[in-house]
Amino acid sequence: MNNFTYHNPTRIVFGKGMIREISNLIPAGSRVLLTYGGGSIKRNGVHAQVMKALAGCQVEEFGGIEPNPRYETLMKAVAQARKFNAGLLLAVGGGSVLDGTKFIAAAVRFEGGDPWDILARDKPVRNPLPIGCVMTLPATGSEMNCYAVVSRDSTQEKLAFANPLVYPQFSILDPETTYSLPRKQVANGIVDAFVHVMEQYMTYPSAAPLQDRQSEAVLRTLIEEAPRILADPPDYDARAAFMWCATNGLNGWLACGVPQDWATHMIGHEITALHGLDHAQTLAIVLPAVWKHEKERKKAKLLQYASRVWSLDSGDEDSRIAQVIEKTAAFFRSVGLPTSLHDYQLPPEIAKTVAGRLSRRGAKLGEHEAISGKEVEEILRLAY
Amino acid sequence: MNNFTYHNPTRIVFGKGMIREISNLIPAGSRVLLTYGGGSIKRNGVHAQVMKALAGCQVEEFGGIEPNPRYETLMKAVAQARKFNAGLLLAVGGGSVLDGTKFIAAAVRFEGGDPWDILARDKPVRNPLPIGCVMTLPATGSEMNCYAVVSRDSTQEKLAFANPLVYPQFSILDPETTYSLPRKQVANGIVDAFVHVMEQYMTYPSAAPLQDRQSEAVLRTLIEEAPRILADPPDYDARAAFMWCATNGLNGWLACGVPQDWATHMIGHEITALHGLDHAQTLAIVLPAVWKHEKERKKAKLLQYASRVWSLDSGDEDSRIAQVIEKTAAFFRSVGLPTSLHDYQLPPEIAKTVAGRLSRRGAKLGEHEAISGKEVEEILRLAY
Repeated sequence: MNNFTYHNPTRIVFGKGMIREISNLIPAGSRVLLTYGGGSIKRNGVHAQVMKALAGCQVEEFGGIEPNPRYETLMKAVAQARKFNAGLLLAVGGGSVLDGTKFIAAAVRFEGGDPWDILARDKPVRNPLPIGCVMTLPATGSEMNCYAVVSRDSTQEKLAFANPLVYPQFSILDPETTYSLPRKQVANGIVDAFVHVMEQYMTYPSAAPLQDRQSEAVLRTLIEEAPRILADPPDYDARAAFMWCATNGLNGWLACGVPQDWATHMIGHEITALHGLDHAQTLAIVLPAVWKHEKERKKAKLLQYASRVWSLDSGDEDSRIAQVIEKTAAFFRSVGLPTSLHDYQLPPEIAKTVAGRLSRRGAKLGEHEAISGKEVEEILRLAY
Repeated sequence: MNNFTYHNPTRIVFGKGMIREISNLIPAGSRVLLTYGGGSIKRNGVHAQVMKALAGCQVEEFGGIEPNPRYETLMKAVAQARKFNAGLLLAVGGGSVLDGTKFIAAAVRFEGGDPWDILARDKPVRNPLPIGCVMTLPATGSEMNCYAVVSRDSTQEKLAFANPLVYPQFSILDPETTYSLPRKQVANGIVDAFVHVMEQYMTYPSAAPLQDRQSEAVLRTLIEEAPRILADPPDYDARAAFMWCATNGLNGWLACGVPQDWATHMIGHEITALHGLDHAQTLAIVLPAVWKHEKERKKAKLLQYASRVWSLDSGDEDSRIAQVIEKTAAFFRSVGLPTSLHDYQLPPEIAKTVAGRLSRRGAKLGEHEAISGKEVEEILRLAY
């Protein structure tokens, strides 16, 4: 096991009806900038619940944060937060709203020049605004981590930052707020949470038997619950399990003391930046291709995963590995996500384009830092 | 799944050599009261590492905190902390040292009269001293929770308190500090961690599939690693896995959204208070007896545990339940802990005595609050 530190100050408030707890979590009189996305929270009753709980506060709203939140949009929120003199940002929505809000929080009092440099040049952030969250889309784990991913139109970039000062102070997770989600977003969330776990698990053995089993716990739960998670009408217990899986998938706990990969995410971000695919759609395509390419380096963990999660214990090693890659891809397709670039009619040149972009940034991806331009191109050819 | 909140502010600093991080975790010039137990830290080099890292601080020491820390001893530390005007308590040792230190922290500035009432009458604690910890004995999970258990000679009582203000600010877990532990303490730690998980798991199904699998992850890891954990010379990877299991066993995460039991602990505390058995020794005796008594109410989870943790899938339900209770008891014995009151030559009257003590306190134990005096007596007869 590798040495590690873990410190996660987010307060989780979980369950039906818990939005009302906002009134105990935010002091009366606070100046709250409520951030949200496309406005679904005004149609499904979540906005009304939030506003009722904020009755004692001064509230302004900033709506319109997109999926893959855009720097250009977020900088408008930064201007509004400064003008309003916001004391706290309350993100109400999914991972994109919260990721965008983390960037807003970091940028409002940023003194290092252009806030884009927080992302592009890893400039230090010292005094972000506090953040609260009502998470309505289980997927990113953003509700209990300090990561954010932001896109920029002008450069077609999608970049991440991490800062322990942007952990949400609290995150409210009410599974009932997910009932109005389109099926596609639920399916995306299942795949996103699943692949988060994989980025921390599917590497090489590192004498971390508990972490391995904890990752397998999330994977098995997602696989077993997926049909019920997607059921209509929504099933509270399944949605609750899903929501908790998503939080567990990326709150940092599974990463304690183990190597990590993240190649699938880095390659996927480029496909989103270039062609606008949903984040999870890119993951469903790229993950099986990364495994095909890296099957020798990931052999021990692929076999462990095959046995423990899919009960694949017969046949030779190569056949079990081929089977478990196909099982995983079939799972993604079973929830509704295609697993080939071909399914989206993306041009074959995408392999070279993405490889070139990552190469120019000096990318060395994967747990061995062994995946750079040439390998990315090979991986994307396997994804076709 | 039940509604829940979770907020755990402890910073975990894990791995070999990490004691030196104290110098980054405690500001120079701090007034630190270092608390410890019987003095093993002075023989195994841990004290020297700690003192080196505290070079910039003003340090006093309070040693001699016993296993099952005694109120009478702890009040001497309270007096010393007041006189020294300590700004932080640094507990170096096992769960008893840390539990005792949590009580000291709560008592130093307690304004509600006799500090015993923190335990006996659940009096509120408002302004405890901050606590840091170097945990050298994996077992209690105290390093990442807000619980403490304290004993009092004059009344032969052993009582618990919980307060979110006594979470350690940081806990340093270096598996190498466990190398000098006597085998008995390691064995006790394995059983203690195992039973902590069981108190949160072995109840009834509550639509918490992820939490169930997370509990099973700790249980399986402890069972699989036990022979290596007990190996001599010590095995770093096994000790690291053990240490992480103990923290995971009682940091509150497994309890999120699920019913809990704790009857085994409450009955065990009485046996320790009356006859001085080690905490884990009492758990190894009481747990199988509680299951025998409660096998109908716990049937679904006993069968799930039998299948998932012990692969007991054949035979009728009663036989699988009998087998899994025996498997669990045999596991305790395999690490060196007897599983019968008889093995300690305790008098048969203990059943009535413990039942009477718990009855007089109005105890209603177990996840259904269905275990009171009569049932406790029946359970302890089954433990004979």
